[in-house]
Formats: sequence, structure tokens, C-alpha cells
Amino acid sequence: MAQIGIILGSDSDLPKIKECFNILEEFGIEFEVLVSSAHRTPEQTVKWVSNARERGLKVIIAAAGGAAHLPGVVAAHTTLPVLGIPIESKIAGGLDSILSIIQMPAGIPVAAMPTGSAGGANAALFALNILSVTDSSVADKLKNYRINMQSKIEAKNKELNSLGYKEYISKLEGK
Amino acid sequence: MAQIGIILGSDSDLPKIKECFNILEEFGIEFEVLVSSAHRTPEQTVKWVSNARERGLKVIIAAAGGAAHLPGVVAAHTTLPVLGIPIESKIAGGLDSILSIIQMPAGIPVAAMPTGSAGGANAALFALNILSVTDSSVADKLKNYRINMQSKIEAKNKELNSLGYKEYISKLEGK
Amino acid sequence: MAQIGIILGSDSDLPKIKECFNILEEFGIEFEVLVSSAHRTPEQTVKWVSNARERGLKVIIAAAGGAAHLPGVVAAHTTLPVLGIPIESKIAGGLDSILSIIQMPAGIPVAAMPTGSAGGANAALFALNILSVTDSSVADKLKNYRINMQSKIEAKNKELNSLGYKEYISKLEGK
Amino acid sequence: MAQIGIILGSDSDLPKIKECFNILEEFGIEFEVLVSSAHRTPEQTVKWVSNARERGLKVIIAAAGGAAHLPGVVAAHTTLPVLGIPIESKIAGGLDSILSIIQMPAGIPVAAMPTGSAGGANAALFALNILSVTDSSVADKLKNYRINMQSKIEAKNKELNSLGYKEYISKLEGK
Amino acid sequence: MAQIGIILGSDSDLPKIKECFNILEEFGIEFEVLVSSAHRTPEQTVKWVSNARERGLKVIIAAAGGAAHLPGVVAAHTTLPVLGIPIESKIAGGLDSILSIIQMPAGIPVAAMPTGSAGGANAALFALNILSVTDSSVADKLKNYRINMQSKIEAKNKELNSLGYKEYISKLEGK
Amino acid sequence: MAQIGIILGSDSDLPKIKECFNILEEFGIEFEVLVSSAHRTPEQTVKWVSNARERGLKVIIAAAGGAAHLPGVVAAHTTLPVLGIPIESKIAGGLDSILSIIQMPAGIPVAAMPTGSAGGANAALFALNILSVTDSSVADKLKNYRINMQSKIEAKNKELNSLGYKEYISKLEGK
Amino acid sequence: MAQIGIILGSDSDLPKIKECFNILEEFGIEFEVLVSSAHRTPEQTVKWVSNARERGLKVIIAAAGGAAHLPGVVAAHTTLPVLGIPIESKIAGGLDSILSIIQMPAGIPVAAMPTGSAGGANAALFALNILSVTDSSVADKLKNYRINMQSKIEAKNKELNSLGYKEYISKLEGK
Amino acid sequence: MAQIGIILGSDSDLPKIKECFNILEEFGIEFEVLVSSAHRTPEQTVKWVSNARERGLKVIIAAAGGAAHLPGVVAAHTTLPVLGIPIESKIAGGLDSILSIIQMPAGIPVAAMPTGSAGGANAALFALNILSVTDSSVADKLKNYRINMQSKIEAKNKELNSLGYKEYISKLEGK
Repeated sequence: MAQIGIILGSDSDLPKIKECFNILEEFGIEFEVLVSSAHRTPEQTVKWVSNARERGLKVIIAAAGGAAHLPGVVAAHTTLPVLGIPIESKIAGGLDSILSIIQMPAGIPVAAMPTGSAGGANAALFALNILSVTDSSVADKLKNYRINMQSKIEAKNKELNSLGYKEYISKLEGK
Repeated sequence: MAQIGIILGSDSDLPKIKECFNILEEFGIEFEVLVSSAHRTPEQTVKWVSNARERGLKVIIAAAGGAAHLPGVVAAHTTLPVLGIPIESKIAGGLDSILSIIQMPAGIPVAAMPTGSAGGANAALFALNILSVTDSSVADKLKNYRINMQSKIEAKNKELNSLGYKEYISKLEGK
Repeated sequence: MAQIGIILGSDSDLPKIKECFNILEEFGIEFEVLVSSAHRTPEQTVKWVSNARERGLKVIIAAAGGAAHLPGVVAAHTTLPVLGIPIESKIAGGLDSILSIIQMPAGIPVAAMPTGSAGGANAALFALNILSVTDSSVADKLKNYRINMQSKIEAKNKELNSLGYKEYISKLEGK
Repeated sequence: MAQIGIILGSDSDLPKIKECFNILEEFGIEFEVLVSSAHRTPEQTVKWVSNARERGLKVIIAAAGGAAHLPGVVAAHTTLPVLGIPIESKIAGGLDSILSIIQMPAGIPVAAMPTGSAGGANAALFALNILSVTDSSVADKLKNYRINMQSKIEAKNKELNSLGYKEYISKLEGK
Repeated sequence: MAQIGIILGSDSDLPKIKECFNILEEFGIEFEVLVSSAHRTPEQTVKWVSNARERGLKVIIAAAGGAAHLPGVVAAHTTLPVLGIPIESKIAGGLDSILSIIQMPAGIPVAAMPTGSAGGANAALFALNILSVTDSSVADKLKNYRINMQSKIEAKNKELNSLGYKEYISKLEGK
Repeated sequence: MAQIGIILGSDSDLPKIKECFNILEEFGIEFEVLVSSAHRTPEQTVKWVSNARERGLKVIIAAAGGAAHLPGVVAAHTTLPVLGIPIESKIAGGLDSILSIIQMPAGIPVAAMPTGSAGGANAALFALNILSVTDSSVADKLKNYRINMQSKIEAKNKELNSLGYKEYISKLEGK
Repeated sequence: MAQIGIILGSDSDLPKIKECFNILEEFGIEFEVLVSSAHRTPEQTVKWVSNARERGLKVIIAAAGGAAHLPGVVAAHTTLPVLGIPIESKIAGGLDSILSIIQMPAGIPVAAMPTGSAGGANAALFALNILSVTDSSVADKLKNYRINMQSKIEAKNKELNSLGYKEYISKLEGK
Repeated sequence: MAQIGIILGSDSDLPKIKECFNILEEFGIEFEVLVSSAHRTPEQTVKWVSNARERGLKVIIAAAGGAAHLPGVVAAHTTLPVLGIPIESKIAGGLDSILSIIQMPAGIPVAAMPTGSAGGANAALFALNILSVTDSSVADKLKNYRINMQSKIEAKNKELNSLGYKEYISKLEGK
């Protein structure tokens, strides 16, 4: 049964939060996905979120760009934790989406994630952090995830030391 | 019967758009006012706007600050013209509200007005511009309104010429 | 007879608001188009707008970038509703155009639309919203337009469900 | 036993997130508070967070201004959910703090809250949303909290209707 | 006969460019002043600028805030040098006015001055720089003006050295 | 003999202000060009500007990007009119250069021009505006320059009318 | 003999970097202070910095606001380390000064410090960090300075624990 | 023995600060390089910096993008001079990184360098400026480095004069 609900304002945002899906799958957490706009399909959006807790969802992830009202509109209809991913736009690289998601009024919280590919990844990981509060198997996997990240950096430093910075940079630029 | 519906995200925004009420009253146009948040009272907001056209409303004015989702949420439930007033905030003087109101996705238009006291005044006047399309008495009053603005500026120039700039500035600063 | 007048500061802005023309045509609303700058051809601009109401125009759409004075200059010579489309520039993705259009002084209202391709689309739709106030056939078509938007999203969700998110993303990225 | 840990970069930030303490107390949730800087007392900060899960904490709230590294530094040492409150600064009203908290790299998530007094309130409520995932008594209280918010707005509309907008504004401005 | 024409979008801007008047007077250069808005009194504005060269004006100074279209509108009707002073607004301290004045399209130049009190002073001095190109008495006075500025700084350093920095700061703060 | 001196912080800025050279040449005004940085070659910069008036220069155009101190440094050593062109950078499209050039302190004026290709064009035209104050042949050529601009726009409108907007856009996009 | 040279663009900046003087004095490091503008007194500025190394200076601290060219101009005439303090302005809280100081071109480095009171403090401490590279007594004092900072925070936590957060906040707000 | 320690938040930043390595090598100064994140490998970061002074390092250069906490976290564990390079991001061209590095709290200084390729170059040169305080051979080499920069600009002006601006621009654009 899905524990995480993911809602996107546009299907064109799907590839932009790819990392979100990948990480949840890697952790073996089921999720459901819906494309639904705060403005174009408001009824569908409200219907989907209103019984989210009853359906068994524990965390909701909402991605949107520009005016980016979706996370706030979703949060207005649930007391589940709602994470908002600002999709990059042309206004100063997504500043419009960031401000629209982060500046929620007192009473209706939304947790703002970063723009760019880090947004999808961190939304998934933050959702897992929430699950880990009461699910120690998730907590253990998160610990391993961090150890893996550190091992990758360690491996890079080893390669950097053995190649020297010049060859390492050439290799990166050659890619 | 009210022709204009005005909705505000918070009652503390009422004094900030005072000019809106004053101008509509000066033009003898009836309006209704509701305090309702996009996030705290979403059902009330949707209910109020959904039958707005049926109630006889012709234009909707929505004022909100910060994430400022209200105008967009309102526009999602009506095809009447919706004017959004961004209430000044501390982020760069209201840049968050401006971007959240102006950057609506294709399909659901909102007309963004200025921040500050000009916001209320111009929302009222823009609503009157809309009414004037089919109501020539409003068009006539708008013409007079502009002539009055010009007369006030003419009077100031006369005073400036007779006092000289030094005394005029002293008078302004003395206020 | 044209009901909507569209004025652009530069002919290079024509493709950027293509959606505006497409939507008006789809709704069967006649419009006229003029390339005229607030600064380079001020007399032509003023002449065109001054008798706009007399020519039968009901709404004016003005698109401009950079300093983007055109919508304001147009609004100074008419009390018809004027919609301003900020054309994207290099300064923070069009922030200069946005602020120049939205921050009109009290007394001379301009309705600011979004930057990017949403600008043209929403200007057309907002103009139609205005016409719909007194023209119920336009109101009916707008209702259908929204239903169509919703059907398209519904179709996307069906495809997303049947393909699964991975294949759907691959398809999007393959395009 | 404390379920929520609150850490602040400076004791001068305590009054700015007052609402956070008030709401947690209102919900009967125990919390602990530490003043500790990411930069001035890094060891104390790391020590406090490293065994937070073992101490029984479920959510961590970190408030900081300016460069605002505290939430990120805290998140680097735990996989508990970390909420970051950007304290208002003079740079564009806190834009520096917002960007420093929201733009976390992939792998180490922080949930960014709003600036201003909404920041403290929403951090508390978001923490409660997390607790509500597995604690239905918290979920019930959150539902009531929202109903209370709605009742307050309803009462304001009643007063607005009975007083009229002019007297209501006078009353607000008289305060 | 006036050599410099000064136009302001609002009489409330007069005190903000006070230094402009003071410097021109100190240099013995005659100037004329008009309050006229690009939007509220467009005809008056155009009329005033259109025969400016014929009236003997050599430089035009235009001050405006917010959308700040006045300098551009003025420049559209003359090939005299037009200096634009952006009056401080609440949007990021006047960023709207700065961008609206500086980002003029190719073909119609405006020279943008600083916001704040430096705006008025530097507009006057820049106008004098222009006059100095063909008037050596103005060039001589400008040289002296700079020597005076340097003498004032010299005097401050002398006082700073004799008082010491502590007492000097106390004196400044005591003011 | 050169009437205009053009100084650039880097030779890579030369193509970016190409229009400046083209326009001055079209008007038959001689100019001199120097690549010299405010920071890397300060002595050369100061030497070049210090006797600019003696060499017969009437206006100085200084182009620089990033910190963009060059126009200010040049203005510190002359009372000739100095025009500053902010070269586009990656920070918000040149916002750093704009602010560094426009925000000069009281006493040392610099006239800020737009970023982008309009910067070079308008610097040339503004310099010509200055020359026109005392050279009526330049004034006449400027008048013709504007008439030519208007003719080009007229021709575009004719083409737009004869082709229709669809074919005109196709033609533009085909380019 | 002075080891640190401090130069300010305006004497009104002296109180704003008060902490700089206090810290250097507390560490027993001699310094010299000069008020000199990059633009108003360029010769004095260049003369002062050109023989700074010969005079025995080891680090230069330059404070300026607005266009804030002073640190860059100083750095153009020395290869000593130059620290730039951006003085707060009204443009987005000092964003103009920050960008003008930080965005130096390759070849002439300036080290940018924070705006606000932290600017003066950190410039002094960073200068001490530089001295500490070869002066172990300064290194020892810096270590103690940090221990003192930590003790103060420890004391605050003790008081917070004994008073409780409510009384502590009341005490802060009572101040 | 390494005198300079360079730490990067990600190996993908290595090519972006290439100039840093090149300049240090050109000056014959040994340096060590570590890839280590403030958030993903906090222990490794702290361990590396904590005994940096003991290992003989004299200056630390830390490069990071986005939230860019690395320079601050490093500075929290040493009193050696720490230079921070903000790596360009998509938010307004790196404004997030700039603000996160420059706005350090009083007590823990970081010297902020420019974004872009100037960042790496100037960090190396600023580090050399620091070494030059007590190493006159470095001071001599820095003097020569500047003379070389000036010679290159001189050569460019010679070529510009002999080719003329048109051919010179063609050559640049042909590249």
C-alpha cells in the first residue's frame, strides 16, 4: 500500500523529480503519483488529498513551478506533512517558485525543498526521515544511504590522489 | 446588487486596500466583501466564488500577501475576471506576493495589480474599466475622474510657480 | 469588427505571444494587431489607442520587454481595460519587465500578465473573461475550454497509470 | 520526555519564534531548547544532534539568520526530520537566510519554513503533522486547531458584516 | 533663461531631489520645474518636452518612482539629453524604479542616476558636466566644486586624527 | 579629432558594444578606443582620462562588467560627462554591473546605460544628444535617425498587414 | 607601528564598523585610519595605499557603501590582502555594495566581508587570522577569543534552563 | 610541504576552480586538495581542518555551491584565514552561494571571493597576497604577475590600434 503520495502540477515536471521516484524505489517504499494542477483541476486535487490519510498515505510530496500554488493548496486540505518542490523557472532560476512555496501563512505549514534535481532527491529523503521516526528499518537504511554517499566521496578522493588534479579534471571535462 | 466581489486573505489587509472601497463608493458601484483565506478556509473561499457569476458579480478582486495564493485559487473556480492585489511583505517589499500572483500558469489568468496603496486604487479603477466596456455611464465617470486628477496636478503646478520650489518644499516637509 | 486590440513594442515579440492569437482565433473573436513602440513611435501609439473605444475595441493587450513602458503609456490614453504582457529579458528572466508593468501609479491601472508563453495565453483568456461578463456565449466557451484542459490532464493520468512513471518519463525525455 | 528538539543560532532569535513554543505547549508536546551556533559552538551543536534520536527526539527545529547554516549542519548529523526557520535579516528581508536554508544539496534534506512570525508557528505545526502520522490524538487536535482557525475567521466576517467595512477599518486602525 | 528643465512625476518627489535644485542654484544656472506625470497628465508632459529645445533647454532631468516611465516618455519626444532619477520605492529599495529607467530600448537613450539623495545631486552635476563641454566657466566651477569636496574630507581627517576615532565616533553618534 | 573617448575594461567587451561604434561612424563622429581596466591598469586608465578634456574629448563612454568600477573610476578624474555601459554578467543577467554603475555617491556622477546590445547603441546616441546641444547638424541627424526608426516600424506594420500575423510569425521563426 | 590600515569612503561609516576598532584594540594591534573616497579623493586614496607595504602595513580594510568601489580601487594599487566591508544601503539591504565588492575581476582579489555590524567585527578577526599565520601570540589570543564566545553561549543556556524560555523571552523583550 | 589547503564540496567543482590550481603552481606554492562536503562528510571535513595549522597550512580555500555552507563550517574549526569561493548555481547566477558565504555571523570570518572563473583565480592570488606579508619572494612574484597582466593589455591595445576596431572585433568573433 502506498505510503507516499506524489502530486505534480504538470506532467512535464515528472522528469525533473526523477530522483524522487528512484530513491523511494531503492528504499522499497510504495508511492502513488497524480498529475493535477491547483488551478486547472482543483476539484481533482482536493479530492485526492482530502482522503489521503484515510487511504494510508503518510507524507505528500507536491511539485510545481511559477506561481507554484499546488503545495499550499494541498496543505490546506490535510494535516499530513506536505513537502513542496519548487520547479525551476526562468525568473531568477526559480525564485518565484521558491518564494511562493516557502512563504506560507501561519497555520498551514508546507516544507520547502530545493529547486533543481536536489529537490526530488531531498523530498524523497525527507519523507523517509519522517517514516524513520517510527520505522527503525527505514532509519537503518537511511544510515546506510549516508555511509554509501561517504564511500563514494572517499573513492573520488582516492582517484584524485592517484591521478593528480590535472588528469582528474581532464577526465571530468572529457566526459 | 453587488457588481464587484472583494475577497481578502486576512482582515488585517482591509486597511491596506481602503482606496479600493473609497473609489467604488465614489462611483456608486455596489460591492460585497469577504475575509477568507485560500489555505485556512478553502471551502468558504471556493463556495463564495463558485456561484459568483450567478449572484451577479462581474469582477472579483482578491488581495493577499506572502505566498499570496488567494487570487489564483479564486481564478481556478470562475471565468469572471479576477484582479489580484499583492499585499506588501518584508521580502524585498512584497516581491514574494508579486511573483506569486503574476506568474499564473497558462489557462487560468489573474490580473496582477501593484503593491502598496496603489494596489487597492487601481484594482477598483480596473474593475470600473471593465464595467465601462458595456456601461457608458461608468465610462463617462472614468473620463471625469481623470480630468479631476489632471486638475489637481495643474493646481499643484500653480502653487509651485507662485510659491517657488523652496517654499513649496518647506511646506511639504512641514507637514 | 475587432473587439480586442493588440499592440507590441517590437515585431520580434510577435512569436512570443503566439498563443494569444491562437486562443482568440479559437474563440472566434476578431482582433487587430499593431507594432508600435512607446518610445520610438509615440505618436502612432497614442493615436491608435486614443480612439480605441470609438473603433469598437473592448480590451487592449500590450506586450513589451525591458523597461516595458508600453502598457502604461497605452493606459494613460484610454479607460478601456489594458492588459500588459512582460516579455522575458535577460535581467533575472524578465524581472525588469514585470516590475515596470505591475508597479503603475494609483489612477492609471494596468493588469499585469505572466512572462513567458503563459503571458500570451492568459492575456487572451483574461480578455475573454472580460467579454464574458456581458456575452454569455463567450462564458459558455470558456467553461468548455476549462473542461477540455481537465480532459487533457485526465488523459495524461490514464497514460501515466498504464505506462508507469518510468516509461512515461522515458517517453517525455525521448521527445 | 521531549519529542521535539529546538536549536537556535542565537538567543536573540528566541522571541522571534515564540509562536513555536506556544503552539507546542498548547498541544501538550514536550520539547527541549538549546542556543548553539553552527559556527561559534560547532562541537556543542554536533554533540546535541548526534544522539538526538537516542534521546527520544522525533523532530528537530533549527532557527538561524544571515548565512543560516545551522539547519544544514544539524541535518548533516541526523536522519531525523530537520525543519529550518530562516530568521529575517536586512538583505531583502531575509532572502539570504531563505536561500541558505532551502538550497541544500541532494542527500541531506532540510525542510524550509517561512520567515517572520509564521516561521515559528509553522515549524511547530509541521512537527505536529509529522507526529500525527502515527499518533491519532495529535491528528485529532490538529483537526480541531484548523476548525478553530476557521471559526475565528467566521467571527471576523460576522463583525465585518455588522459593523460595515468603514467602521471595521477604523477599529483596526484605532488599535 | 532656463537651461535645465526638471520634471517630476509627483510633487511629493520635490523634497527627495532637493540637492538638485541647491546645486544648480549654487552654480548660478537657471532651471524650470514642472510636476507632470507620464500617465496622469500625458499631454502636458509631451507638450512641455516637445518644444524644450526651442525654449532654450539644454538638458532635461526627470524624476519618478515605481514603474517610473516618465524619463523614458520624455526621451521619446526629444533628442536633448534626458537624465532619469529613480525615486526610492518599497520594492527592494527602489529596484523597480532603477530597472524601469535604465533598461531603455535601443534608439531612445536615458541616462540613469542613483536612487536616494545622491540622485538629485548627481543629476545636477551631470547636467553641469554637459554644459561644461562648451562652457569653460562651468568647467572651472566644477573643478572648484571637486576641490571643495576634497577639502571637506581633508578637514574630517584632521579632526579624526586630533580627536581619535573613539571620540569622533561618539561625536557622530551624539548628533 | 576625436570627440568621444571609449574605454573598455576588457577587449572581450568590444563586440558587445559594436552598435556604439557603428552609430558614431554613421553620424561621422570621430572617436578613440582604449582597452584599460580600472584594476589591472589603473595608471593607464587615469592617465588617459586626466587630460581627456585637453585632448578635445567631449564625452567619455566606459563599458565594464561584474564589479564594473571602470565608469566610476574614470568619472573620478574628469568633469566631462561619463556614460557607463554595464556588460551582462551571470549574476541575474547583469544586476551586479547595473548596481555598481548606477549607485555612484553624490558628487561624482555617472550616467548608466542599459545592459545588452541596447547599451552600446544608447551610449552612442546619448553622446550624440550631448553634442547636439551646441551642434545643430548633429541635432538634425538625430531627428532623421528617429524618423528612420519610425519608417522601419511602419514598413513592418505594412508587411504584417499584408502577410497576416500567421505568415509573419512563420517568416520570423524561419529566420 | 600600525600593522593594519583602515580606509573608509565616508566618515559616516565610522560608527558602522566600530566593532572593527574595538576588536583590534582588544588584541593590542595598532592600526591607522583614513577617510578617503575612491571617487572624491582618488589621489589621496592611491597615495595612501601605494606605499602601504613600505609603511609596514600587513592588511588593509576598506569599507564603502552603494557602488562601493573603494576596496577594488585600493586592491588595484597593492598586493597586500585587502578586505572589503559592504556598508548597508537601501537597495535590498546592501545588495548593491555586496555585489560591487565581491565580483572583482580575475587578477585583483578583494576579500568580501558581511554587511551590518558583523562586517566590522569579521574584518578585524580575518585580519588577525592573517597575522596569526606567522605570529603565534595572535593565534593564541584568537583561540581564547573563540573560547570566550563559547563561554558566553554556555552562560546563556544556563540562564535559559534556569529561567525557562518564557521568562527568558520576557527578559529579552523587556530590554 | 603544502602551504595552502583546498577543499571542495563536490568533485564536479574541480574544473570550475582550475585557475586556482594553475596560479598556485605557476607561483611554485605547494597545496593539498580534498573533496569533502559540509553535509555529506562532515567528520572528514572537520578532521581535515582541525589540525590544518599543525600540518603547516597557512591559508584554506573552500569552494561550494547552492547553500554553500562549506567555507563557514571550515572556518568554525580553525583560525587560519578561510577563503570561500561561491560556485555558480541557477538561482540568479549564484546569488544563493554568494549570500550564504558572505553573510557569516560576527566572530567567525570567511573571505568571500567572486563567482565564476574569477573565483578560483582570485582565491589563489589572495592566498598569495597573504603569504606575501611575510615572504618577500612571493611579494616580488606578485608584482611581476601584475606587470605581466598590464603587458598583455598593452599588447591588445597595440593590436587594436593596428587592426582597427572592426577587424579586431571580427577576429574576436571569428574565434
